[in-house]
Amino acid sequence: MWHLHHFSLCAFSRKIRLVLAEYRLDFDLISVRPWDAEPDFIAMNPAGLTPVLTSDEDERVLSDSGAIFEYLSAQYADDVSLLGDTDLTAAEARRLAAWFDVKFYTEVTAYAFAEKVAKRFITKAPPNAKAVRAASHNLKTHLDYIEHLFARRSWLAGDRFTIADIAAAAHISIIDYLGMIDWSAHSGAQDWYARLKSRPSMRPILADRMPGLKPAPHYDQLDF
Amino acid sequence: MWHLHHFSLCAFSRKIRLVLAEYRLDFDLISVRPWDAEPDFIAMNPAGLTPVLTSDEDERVLSDSGAIFEYLSAQYADDVSLLGDTDLTAAEARRLAAWFDVKFYTEVTAYAFAEKVAKRFITKAPPNAKAVRAASHNLKTHLDYIEHLFARRSWLAGDRFTIADIAAAAHISIIDYLGMIDWSAHSGAQDWYARLKSRPSMRPILADRMPGLKPAPHYDQLDF
Repeated sequence: MWHLHHFSLCAFSRKIRLVLAEYRLDFDLISVRPWDAEPDFIAMNPAGLTPVLTSDEDERVLSDSGAIFEYLSAQYADDVSLLGDTDLTAAEARRLAAWFDVKFYTEVTAYAFAEKVAKRFITKAPPNAKAVRAASHNLKTHLDYIEHLFARRSWLAGDRFTIADIAAAAHISIIDYLGMIDWSAHSGAQDWYARLKSRPSMRPILADRMPGLKPAPHYDQLDF
Repeated sequence: MWHLHHFSLCAFSRKIRLVLAEYRLDFDLISVRPWDAEPDFIAMNPAGLTPVLTSDEDERVLSDSGAIFEYLSAQYADDVSLLGDTDLTAAEARRLAAWFDVKFYTEVTAYAFAEKVAKRFITKAPPNAKAVRAASHNLKTHLDYIEHLFARRSWLAGDRFTIADIAAAAHISIIDYLGMIDWSAHSGAQDWYARLKSRPSMRPILADRMPGLKPAPHYDQLDF
């Protein structure tokens, strides 16, 4: 069995939870607060970041969500491909996964996390309204991009559900937990996210609650 | 033949130049100033970033350095592996590549680029000494980490030269161009970089000059 050392509102942890579930692998969750920088955790990942995936069968210790995904993909992709059917569809899926893991993260998730999560639980400072507004403003462009892609394709990267949808869902689900998405203004992106939410792999994510921080009321509703 | 749309002092462009050269693929370079946001370039990569790889044989347009690397790796890895020999060495190589592309980039390259390149060519503002000092301070931890790894291994990720060495060299070569590395204080990292510099794939990078910005005097010297 796999152990996933994760933090509930870490998008990169959520990405690997979804990947493990899509590959139907057995895993349990070990909660980590990365900012505590526990020596045992730093020994597993010198970068000090979640997620870290360990095996109870042997000494395997994997970190970095991209490296973990590629490892699992090489091991288990015969059953379920999360990279489409060809090297070119894989390139498109990886391009879009990087879009969410780098661009969406930098422009939206990092701000939202810093202001609405880190300040609440770590520094106990009030959120900076200007930073939250910047994240909300940037978010609109990304929801438009999801809408643009989903209007032309069955899933974000093409005909198949891929790591692009998983990376997007990992980030979007956190921003939606924090109540920052006005779905009524983004019905195209909403159609994509509704399709995503109905996948069995999403259920544990939608059932997850960060103690001390309630999600938006519609967060776990399939009709939202 | 491949065309690489790149910017000389973009670490992600340098990473793909090195990958193409290690796979001994024919390519030419097309210089792009990403901040000009030319419509033709945005059409190739909506993220507006270098590198973009195109083919003159067909319609292939690849962007995001991670997606490009994985694509080329799937196509050409039978001849040269840049991911070691097993799925586990590949995970270690990808973990370290992400270390440099995310952590080193955020803590060092992005600051150095903003202060010493973007301000010189784009905003024409003087560099912020505090930001440059922060980058230099962070850099030391990374050079120590390279030293720590190279003291135990032939290359950063293990016995084989991998994408980890390439990603590290892409970032380090830019920071070294900008004269920010005191190699005398980091002899272990220097041994690794000397080994790197002597590879044929590094020669065009060391010969490259950004118009209007001279490199440090030792930049292209194999004995530095």
